Amino acid sequence: MAQVIADRRDVDFVLHEQLNVGALSKHEKFEEFNKKTVDLIISEARNLAVKEILPTLKDGDEQGCHLENGQVSVPESFKRAYDLFVEGEWLAMPEDPEYGGQGMPRTVALAAGDYFNGANYAFMMYPGLTHGAALLVEAFGTERQKKLFLKNMFTGTWTGTMLLTEPEAGSDVGSLSTTAVKNEDGTYSISGNKIFISAGEHDMVENIVHPVLARIEGAPAGTKGISLFLVPKYRVNDDGSLGDFNDVVCTGIEHKMGINGNATCSLTLGGKGQCIGELLGEENKGMRAMFLMMNEARLLVGMQGFCCASASYMNAINYARERVQGKNLLQMMDPNAASVPIIQHPDVRRMLISMKSYVEGMRSLLYYAGYLSDQIAVADEQDEKARLQGMLDLLIPICKGYVTDKAFDVCSAGVQVYGGYGFTREYPQEQLLRDCRITMIYEGTNGIQAMDLLGRKLGMNKGKPIMDLMVEIQKTIAQAKEIEGLKEYAAKLEKALNRLGEVAMQLGATAMSPKVMSAFAFAHPFMDASGDVVMAWMLLWRGCIAAAKLEKGAKKKDQAFYEGQMKSLQYFTQAVLPITMGKMDAIMTNCDAAVEISEDAFGGK
Amino acid sequence: MAQVIADRRDVDFVLHEQLNVGALSKHEKFEEFNKKTVDLIISEARNLAVKEILPTLKDGDEQGCHLENGQVSVPESFKRAYDLFVEGEWLAMPEDPEYGGQGMPRTVALAAGDYFNGANYAFMMYPGLTHGAALLVEAFGTERQKKLFLKNMFTGTWTGTMLLTEPEAGSDVGSLSTTAVKNEDGTYSISGNKIFISAGEHDMVENIVHPVLARIEGAPAGTKGISLFLVPKYRVNDDGSLGDFNDVVCTGIEHKMGINGNATCSLTLGGKGQCIGELLGEENKGMRAMFLMMNEARLLVGMQGFCCASASYMNAINYARERVQGKNLLQMMDPNAASVPIIQHPDVRRMLISMKSYVEGMRSLLYYAGYLSDQIAVADEQDEKARLQGMLDLLIPICKGYVTDKAFDVCSAGVQVYGGYGFTREYPQEQLLRDCRITMIYEGTNGIQAMDLLGRKLGMNKGKPIMDLMVEIQKTIAQAKEIEGLKEYAAKLEKALNRLGEVAMQLGATAMSPKVMSAFAFAHPFMDASGDVVMAWMLLWRGCIAAAKLEKGAKKKDQAFYEGQMKSLQYFTQAVLPITMGKMDAIMTNCDAAVEISEDAFGGK
Repeated sequence: MAQVIADRRDVDFVLHEQLNVGALSKHEKFEEFNKKTVDLIISEARNLAVKEILPTLKDGDEQGCHLENGQVSVPESFKRAYDLFVEGEWLAMPEDPEYGGQGMPRTVALAAGDYFNGANYAFMMYPGLTHGAALLVEAFGTERQKKLFLKNMFTGTWTGTMLLTEPEAGSDVGSLSTTAVKNEDGTYSISGNKIFISAGEHDMVENIVHPVLARIEGAPAGTKGISLFLVPKYRVNDDGSLGDFNDVVCTGIEHKMGINGNATCSLTLGGKGQCIGELLGEENKGMRAMFLMMNEARLLVGMQGFCCASASYMNAINYARERVQGKNLLQMMDPNAASVPIIQHPDVRRMLISMKSYVEGMRSLLYYAGYLSDQIAVADEQDEKARLQGMLDLLIPICKGYVTDKAFDVCSAGVQVYGGYGFTREYPQEQLLRDCRITMIYEGTNGIQAMDLLGRKLGMNKGKPIMDLMVEIQKTIAQAKEIEGLKEYAAKLEKALNRLGEVAMQLGATAMSPKVMSAFAFAHPFMDASGDVVMAWMLLWRGCIAAAKLEKGAKKKDQAFYEGQMKSLQYFTQAVLPITMGKMDAIMTNCDAAVEISEDAFGGK
Repeated sequence: MAQVIADRRDVDFVLHEQLNVGALSKHEKFEEFNKKTVDLIISEARNLAVKEILPTLKDGDEQGCHLENGQVSVPESFKRAYDLFVEGEWLAMPEDPEYGGQGMPRTVALAAGDYFNGANYAFMMYPGLTHGAALLVEAFGTERQKKLFLKNMFTGTWTGTMLLTEPEAGSDVGSLSTTAVKNEDGTYSISGNKIFISAGEHDMVENIVHPVLARIEGAPAGTKGISLFLVPKYRVNDDGSLGDFNDVVCTGIEHKMGINGNATCSLTLGGKGQCIGELLGEENKGMRAMFLMMNEARLLVGMQGFCCASASYMNAINYARERVQGKNLLQMMDPNAASVPIIQHPDVRRMLISMKSYVEGMRSLLYYAGYLSDQIAVADEQDEKARLQGMLDLLIPICKGYVTDKAFDVCSAGVQVYGGYGFTREYPQEQLLRDCRITMIYEGTNGIQAMDLLGRKLGMNKGKPIMDLMVEIQKTIAQAKEIEGLKEYAAKLEKALNRLGEVAMQLGATAMSPKVMSAFAFAHPFMDASGDVVMAWMLLWRGCIAAAKLEKGAKKKDQAFYEGQMKSLQYFTQAVLPITMGKMDAIMTNCDAAVEISEDAFGGK
């Protein structure tokens, strides 16, 4: 039977054959999670996703969310799915069991999330944001705050959000104007307007916990004067029971291109002067708290985009096998030739293999990012922890920025494979494309991801992380060079990697020179080229495994899978990497047209 | 004041400075259309588009079309706009005044259409399809058919459509199953089901004329047995009055990702055995008729996509000038630095100059295609007509396939410039992206455009058209080489052009070899690379003009415009053409992964 959402064989391949995630169970922290347990978890997740969450996808889009008298209602089918999701204890998979988590490796949680997010990520944002908000409480909360909030959040009894964006402070968080005034009892009176608050209000649970960025009266301007507060929708009494309404009012929800199942709210805090918040962490350290949570959040957004792409590919491949139209090109001249499934047409195959290779490369990359977290958690040596953390930090903008860019392209190809039907709401392809689009924008636009990569990550710790990453890539190249049939691909990746090193050196130097503006006009192309190289690495790594398995001889179905790995690798290195080389040549021109053009010369006035 | 839809200065530049369209008035056929008249026409078109059509854009999307009891209703505001449009005699701008046309050069009609389609192309499809259907009547109709139908269509009293697609015959027209049975009076009884019929039913006019592709009983299989019929919604009496309902029933309308203002209908013909059609043209020559109209139709779709991109760029540039957020990168370290308009941020500038250069290149290309038609119309020599026709035929798949691909990318950038607001329905950017998406699919998917380019157009007439086009491009290169400041760009384009010649030779040869499937798996990349080269040509051509004007000294506002031309050229040749070189390197690998991969290896089963 045709698979949906994600290819289980591929999920298993990355978990076990590429990352050997079961081996984490040799560490005490993950001892319960041997391969067999991991497989059971993925099967359960897949089951819930396919049977209970996927059916809500269309409801979310067509019914959307509705605001009436400050109350937001979500589609009815979301409620059952939410209850099942939290009953299954899926919300805080990798977190501390003491507070309601499952203590699972992040890699495994990501793989389970592959199914959940691919089924309906707009729905998944309710538990997803709850998880993120809870992590802030876990990291910065007092014992009392943890006791009152954490378990209720990790178990999904209450949900959470993140109140960051304001009308004049989106990408530029430092200019926010929400204020906090200290009360005599140590709490703060919060007052301000927040917009674009995902899952900001809904009717699935009785309380919503809002971490809020605000400025304490008299605090410095900019990001240095921002503090983090815990602001529940209903106040929480010391015994854990709910108190009064806390003056957090939803004043509007956005009408959007996609993810209509998730309520994107405008919230007014303290409109009646009755919004009370507790400081979470230290005064004026709000941005630091944000930064600590950033990797997690950005990786999740990368997953959201990727999961749209994965689902779109699964649909496209199944559709292309079944949809009969047109003759095989080799029989074009025969008027009596039968029509064939469109998977036989070369241009459809081009789209499918392109989708396939990106989906596979992105899956490997995202799981690998999770795997780095797990390795950090179990590493004994501080040096090793730092090395792994550096690589993770470096890869995060690629996991978010590059992945969501390419995911959108994959979703667009997924529409194209369906032809005219792809444009209709009868099939899921156009919704996946629409849903996917926001992942390029929120949690730091992809332009900001690119600036993060070039401006912060590349030069971090004197460039050690990029060097460490290159060493890892070189290891795979060295291994591939020893394998007949992979030598050509290894050589191509090596050439691209070396060129990337040159580009990073030149662009990094330009970014420190008076030509800094020109350098940053190439930040996004640099992220794009870096991402291509990382994709090629992931596919070569996969190819090394596949080649070895084919050499040993595999079962028929496995054989097709491994041969498919070799074809993805061949396609990407032959048909995509040359374009990457061109992208790097473009960066090396140092073209300054984008920054030197006068504002008037853009026209339109 | 900020401009919308299209940059008038740029429209005028292409019309007068690049193509010198006023000079067409030296030919008798176009003698009325001197520069002054052309300018008046464009001003009128712009006025109508901005004041009357643009306000219907959101209505079309939000209200959409509704089907009740076989009747489709369009948004109320469409009716006034339609009446004004046809009263202004805009429907058949370039057609014969005897039948209600204006006899205008196609280039000028395209420029007027730049505003109309950019204002709301879903609305414009009602008159646009009418125009196309009328052209079929003009080309293939008897005198009687012309008398009864043509003027009513060219004046928009009735509208028209094109009934081609069936559930099992979309891209593969030859497999259609609608039948025609000859009656004793020479008419035909038509019976079948058509889908995806744009403007197939609506409530703006009293009659709709459907050209229908159907197979006469006993006709050969495939495309050779297809005939074209004229099937009105209401029969037309010999005196021109309307007769009985002709059994053309709308059974459904599609719910779509975009262009919701246009009704996409399923039509059942002859469900009660009472649908009468007249043969239009000769028996079994229906596909030939289609092909004759194809250039016109595909060019229009290119315009539709392009106009979304142009409108998106106009919105983005105006938004970027007004939206204040974040500090200038050079003042990042100053906590007291003021926030600046986002047009100052390098990544925003990168997006804007990319949008600008594509929009300009595409505008030049599309107008140039119209200009070739006009040149063909006034050329004295058959050889010259053939040369121009060959180049036009060659460029059509690029005008449709490449332009709509890039238009979609531009629209996506247009969303990105707006950040989170771009994803909301509050701003037009996300609608333009959605509306644009279908242009990559209908009127021959872009995969089919690519196959047309590689499989038909490239080898047409022993390759003369591609050679003629290269000669034209070389002329511009030679001219640019004489101009200080353009030499580098001329050299880069020359290199790319020469490489394109090599790629065309190799790929063309592969397409004639047993590796034909592999060749066609690169048809789309080849179209993509060819389109890039044509863009660079158009921008270099523009640059030659701009450089000369700057050399002579221009007024301040003009100076900014011309400098903007130089920057687009610089950006495209330095930051895009190297990628094009990479695309061509990829094609030259002859990678066969897409065709050699087994169906099982695609996974998902």
